[in-house]
Amino acid sequence: MTRPDGRKANQLRPVKITRNWTMHAEGSVLVEFGNTKVLCTASVTEGVPRWRKGSGLGWLTSEYAMLPRATTTRNDREAVKGKVGGRTHEISRLIGRSLRACIDLKALGENSIVLDCDVLQADGGTRTAAITGAYVALHDAVSWLAAKNALTRKQTVATTLHRSVAAVSVGIIAGEPRLDLCYDEDVAAEVDMNIVCTGTGEFVEVQGTGEDGVFNRDQLNALLDLGIAGCQQLATAQALALATDLKR
Amino acid sequence: MTRPDGRKANQLRPVKITRNWTMHAEGSVLVEFGNTKVLCTASVTEGVPRWRKGSGLGWLTSEYAMLPRATTTRNDREAVKGKVGGRTHEISRLIGRSLRACIDLKALGENSIVLDCDVLQADGGTRTAAITGAYVALHDAVSWLAAKNALTRKQTVATTLHRSVAAVSVGIIAGEPRLDLCYDEDVAAEVDMNIVCTGTGEFVEVQGTGEDGVFNRDQLNALLDLGIAGCQQLATAQALALATDLKR
Amino acid sequence: MTRPDGRKANQLRPVKITRNWTMHAEGSVLVEFGNTKVLCTASVTEGVPRWRKGSGLGWLTSEYAMLPRATTTRNDREAVKGKVGGRTHEISRLIGRSLRACIDLKALGENSIVLDCDVLQADGGTRTAAITGAYVALHDAVSWLAAKNALTRKQTVATTLHRSVAAVSVGIIAGEPRLDLCYDEDVAAEVDMNIVCTGTGEFVEVQGTGEDGVFNRDQLNALLDLGIAGCQQLATAQALALATDLKR
Amino acid sequence: MTRPDGRKANQLRPVKITRNWTMHAEGSVLVEFGNTKVLCTASVTEGVPRWRKGSGLGWLTSEYAMLPRATTTRNDREAVKGKVGGRTHEISRLIGRSLRACIDLKALGENSIVLDCDVLQADGGTRTAAITGAYVALHDAVSWLAAKNALTRKQTVATTLHRSVAAVSVGIIAGEPRLDLCYDEDVAAEVDMNIVCTGTGEFVEVQGTGEDGVFNRDQLNALLDLGIAGCQQLATAQALALATDLKR
Amino acid sequence: MTRPDGRKANQLRPVKITRNWTMHAEGSVLVEFGNTKVLCTASVTEGVPRWRKGSGLGWLTSEYAMLPRATTTRNDREAVKGKVGGRTHEISRLIGRSLRACIDLKALGENSIVLDCDVLQADGGTRTAAITGAYVALHDAVSWLAAKNALTRKQTVATTLHRSVAAVSVGIIAGEPRLDLCYDEDVAAEVDMNIVCTGTGEFVEVQGTGEDGVFNRDQLNALLDLGIAGCQQLATAQALALATDLKR
Amino acid sequence: MTRPDGRKANQLRPVKITRNWTMHAEGSVLVEFGNTKVLCTASVTEGVPRWRKGSGLGWLTSEYAMLPRATTTRNDREAVKGKVGGRTHEISRLIGRSLRACIDLKALGENSIVLDCDVLQADGGTRTAAITGAYVALHDAVSWLAAKNALTRKQTVATTLHRSVAAVSVGIIAGEPRLDLCYDEDVAAEVDMNIVCTGTGEFVEVQGTGEDGVFNRDQLNALLDLGIAGCQQLATAQALALATDLKR
Repeated sequence: MTRPDGRKANQLRPVKITRNWTMHAEGSVLVEFGNTKVLCTASVTEGVPRWRKGSGLGWLTSEYAMLPRATTTRNDREAVKGKVGGRTHEISRLIGRSLRACIDLKALGENSIVLDCDVLQADGGTRTAAITGAYVALHDAVSWLAAKNALTRKQTVATTLHRSVAAVSVGIIAGEPRLDLCYDEDVAAEVDMNIVCTGTGEFVEVQGTGEDGVFNRDQLNALLDLGIAGCQQLATAQALALATDLKR
Repeated sequence: MTRPDGRKANQLRPVKITRNWTMHAEGSVLVEFGNTKVLCTASVTEGVPRWRKGSGLGWLTSEYAMLPRATTTRNDREAVKGKVGGRTHEISRLIGRSLRACIDLKALGENSIVLDCDVLQADGGTRTAAITGAYVALHDAVSWLAAKNALTRKQTVATTLHRSVAAVSVGIIAGEPRLDLCYDEDVAAEVDMNIVCTGTGEFVEVQGTGEDGVFNRDQLNALLDLGIAGCQQLATAQALALATDLKR
Repeated sequence: MTRPDGRKANQLRPVKITRNWTMHAEGSVLVEFGNTKVLCTASVTEGVPRWRKGSGLGWLTSEYAMLPRATTTRNDREAVKGKVGGRTHEISRLIGRSLRACIDLKALGENSIVLDCDVLQADGGTRTAAITGAYVALHDAVSWLAAKNALTRKQTVATTLHRSVAAVSVGIIAGEPRLDLCYDEDVAAEVDMNIVCTGTGEFVEVQGTGEDGVFNRDQLNALLDLGIAGCQQLATAQALALATDLKR
Repeated sequence: MTRPDGRKANQLRPVKITRNWTMHAEGSVLVEFGNTKVLCTASVTEGVPRWRKGSGLGWLTSEYAMLPRATTTRNDREAVKGKVGGRTHEISRLIGRSLRACIDLKALGENSIVLDCDVLQADGGTRTAAITGAYVALHDAVSWLAAKNALTRKQTVATTLHRSVAAVSVGIIAGEPRLDLCYDEDVAAEVDMNIVCTGTGEFVEVQGTGEDGVFNRDQLNALLDLGIAGCQQLATAQALALATDLKR
Repeated sequence: MTRPDGRKANQLRPVKITRNWTMHAEGSVLVEFGNTKVLCTASVTEGVPRWRKGSGLGWLTSEYAMLPRATTTRNDREAVKGKVGGRTHEISRLIGRSLRACIDLKALGENSIVLDCDVLQADGGTRTAAITGAYVALHDAVSWLAAKNALTRKQTVATTLHRSVAAVSVGIIAGEPRLDLCYDEDVAAEVDMNIVCTGTGEFVEVQGTGEDGVFNRDQLNALLDLGIAGCQQLATAQALALATDLKR
Repeated sequence: MTRPDGRKANQLRPVKITRNWTMHAEGSVLVEFGNTKVLCTASVTEGVPRWRKGSGLGWLTSEYAMLPRATTTRNDREAVKGKVGGRTHEISRLIGRSLRACIDLKALGENSIVLDCDVLQADGGTRTAAITGAYVALHDAVSWLAAKNALTRKQTVATTLHRSVAAVSVGIIAGEPRLDLCYDEDVAAEVDMNIVCTGTGEFVEVQGTGEDGVFNRDQLNALLDLGIAGCQQLATAQALALATDLKR
């Protein structure tokens, strides 16, 4: 059985990471996993939420959303509905947790970074693309802070962002474990898993779901193997994207 | 290093499952994992959501909430705030997915079951207690349907609920993998994981998070081992609770 | 004509008041009027609402709610609907006014007590049970403040809570005035009245409604007689419940 | 001790009822109790709420609101705040219940009447003025239905509106029971009571509150006496206002 | 072709401006353009919005709303719907911008004026009537501030309100440009335009719309001519209304 | 005095119109006016709003929004705030009215087109860019309907879209009328105007505002001249963009 786009089971879709994609944000990255396109911006803002004041620590949070026609049929806007849906909440929280795992919040002082991940075009894997792109946007924002000496004393970009983070989806379709599912595979998957790894191959978050089925230890291990390998390739893509200086 | 309540690392807190805890619902279970107490009710309602009409299939969904003073300090009510928070959304969705994994929705016809999981007292592990209790409440609701011949043709309780589901939290505290974390352990955990298993030891959902840290494959495996064993004990507790007939 | 549960017209349902029912709140009471069960917690919080700052006075407020399946059919959650309904607002305000009538808010300094009354199981009279239970929870919270010397100078539990407050419903069914209506009586009542009295038999609040009928002065007097006598018995039950020291 | 406007304790403020005050509604009444001015419109609309469909019965409901600067200081709009407050809910429900007590909803068929009571200027007693004015607006709307033969068979205005309803506030200020409190008296009252009576002197609703105090049976009786007499005068004012035909 | 009320194409409806219409607001004006009646109140409040603090400047804003039965059929309340609609937002913003054009906000110090424009009865042109009436209410509020020496140094009513502002609608019906459209004309108009002018004939805001058609330069010029002349007459009516002292 | 980017007063910024920018929508256009970038998608959906059912007519509406970091500083998401702001409402309505002016809604039958205009990067003129791009997206959606024979009988793309529509901002900065303001000019403008024209130079909508000033007839005429000429150039750009067939 072949994949819709002819890929091998352990093959990522073409990954493209474009920095400086919009002009206002401290970090702005368009990340593409095949036809999935997510704009990730990192905004540095003064101050921290009320519950964190006086701690001396910064804060990092994320908000994920989809444009109404990022999908095959139009979705009503959450702003018009007047509330954020459960899926949006769940993904926003996942992105926030994943990126907080790679940053030393002391280095920010009592300032915040907001990572906005807006899906311009969806074809499966939007949350994992968002995490992968958000890391690069965050890196640019931290570099921006470093360049204006706004990190707390002795901190550098390297000590502030002490790990890189990337994410990929894996799943079992017709019994076969596959890497980086596109939308058609996602809806057909018996098991669906999102894996968030550091650049050195450690886990930051692992979420596996078998809504229309269950999975055993062997299947889990096969999926983890695929996911770790995929994250490794994404880490390389992130490093390449970050290898050049950004002209501002 | 000892646990706050003196348990062994691989030991559950005392589990108590009380059926028929309130009188109106088709299934009503108070589940206790130590000091964590969650009321799980299963409500049978006619009809299905609009997007499912005409499918011939039923639907199952869940809503989780905490009473304002279930916790050490009071939380504002979401009804008063006018919106459901991200954590609530995330947990409600997890419970719904987990329970849908054990039911044949065709057996319901176009009818729905809502599982309300309200935390009366919280001491860590509320979502896993909720899943474990909700399964028993669901079982009673399906029995209620069977008793009034409301399942679609030839279906029985056993074919409708073809698996049991239970859940438990595991985590790493000070380097030690532990089963069924209480609140003080939960806030201290470097890695936090929720494992949802069937009675036969297969995975329904696995969610591991290392917000303040990362975890490697060995640690993940240790946590999975603990979680699978814990779920097995919970499945036994569920079976015992369900072994007697319910007087209505 | 006999009552559904065989009671006499002037007879209360069995009343049960359990203190310390949950472990986190400063006061936590499960109150039962027959099958009606309401959890009343009193939470001490620092500070007062903005409009009261600088007054030197404390504040007391209440929030009432029902679990979705406290009733014979499931009610949608107000948090999910995104707004608090009129009935909920009306009852929350009644409880707050009733309890403010028995407390000297100067004794709290600029601190607040929130009384959360959550109906776990409903069978008529939830608001009157809530008031009756909330008084006991409030007493425990004030005792907690006294024990840590947090009341303003020279104030004691007795001077802070200078009255007790209890409430009961009365109504006319098929021409007969009855005390403490259960749900089936409540929906059949021509006149429905809630009476809130102090332990010494004075009125705090009187609300009589004849939605499907009207009532004359004689009927009103008969209902008031019933209600005062009922509140007197509830005051005794409260005193008994409070007669023992609470182990915390 | 004299009243702010020199009235006797048992004297109403000047009452003015102007029908046809705006041109679009089926009933439109400006009611004035001294400086309190409330616009009451009755709108006939086709259909009934979903829960009442198929009953053959009509429905009557009410919505109360205050213009932002009806009061001495400006109140934020509930539309801008995005939610209806507790006081608004409580009063809207009181008005609706009171007016439903005087109408035979079968006569409407499955149609609804909405009574909108908007306070243009507030000086105490807005809810009682609203009920008193809403009755007249409702009468005009029922006459409008009768004139176009839209009442169900054999029903007339007189059989449809089988009672009149009026309301007045009473209270105890400095120990003295007084009728029809203005704002300054309202805030100073130890006991505050709203009495809704039919034209024949029966009670529809009685609500007495002693937030800053309590009241005994004698005080209650004195207030009821005052209120019944006041409602009687208001019923006369309503009858006079309705004595002339309305030119549409 | 004649107009519904027999007016000439360039003729305003009868204009009536009543000051001091309600008693609490610093400025309170009922403005009538024929059957359109709008209550405009100006409320002086301490402080300015957060984003303006420290600027030394005051702020002026406006909120427009319609009573539910100001119109031929009843509109649901925005408070009950829980959100402000687009039309309401659009008109509130237009009124605010128009009135800010005539006031020196430095004269207020860091204080605010809120102009509430509530439509009591609608027959077309509610927004233009609102602007015209709000100017007079604003003038009374500024006079009130001047009388208590609350304007910043050396400022007078004349220097604070350095221009007057009035507004009128114009439109093309069946090819004919007309001034001050009533509702029936408004819905039939091919082109609809609102013109806001100063008392000296300069433009503050011009909004022309051809939803069911388009318009050319000649038509635009004819509408502007009509609108400027109409505003001139309204400015005279405002001046006359303001010519007498207000007894407070 | 020169413009920030050295343009002449009557010169547009570089205009770029990219069709088929995303893959799911029936029309998808990225429009760029200099640094302002707006994604305009046209979504064909079955059915019409309730108030339009049975009319035989289609409907067209628009929703405008900005990504949180489209601007120099981050704006909170309206979905998170739980309501759509006044500016968003105002612009969404303007876009909808403008595009409805160019379409024959009978041709759609009872179906709808939603034009979503999401600002990816803002530098002034976002609403005029949105209108200009939305027309092209709408054209592609109508072509899509025509290609599948979904327009009602005998209608073609040309008869359905009987006009083109484009829009541009104009304003007066330091006394000089200028075309197509960038953000820095927009905030400095004494008069700000948005002009919506058909391809044949007729007006669809004209909105001129002098919030910090007023403007006279000569200034208005100068702005109109500039705006008409600018729209003419935009109409040419639209025609060029549409000159090629779209590969789907």
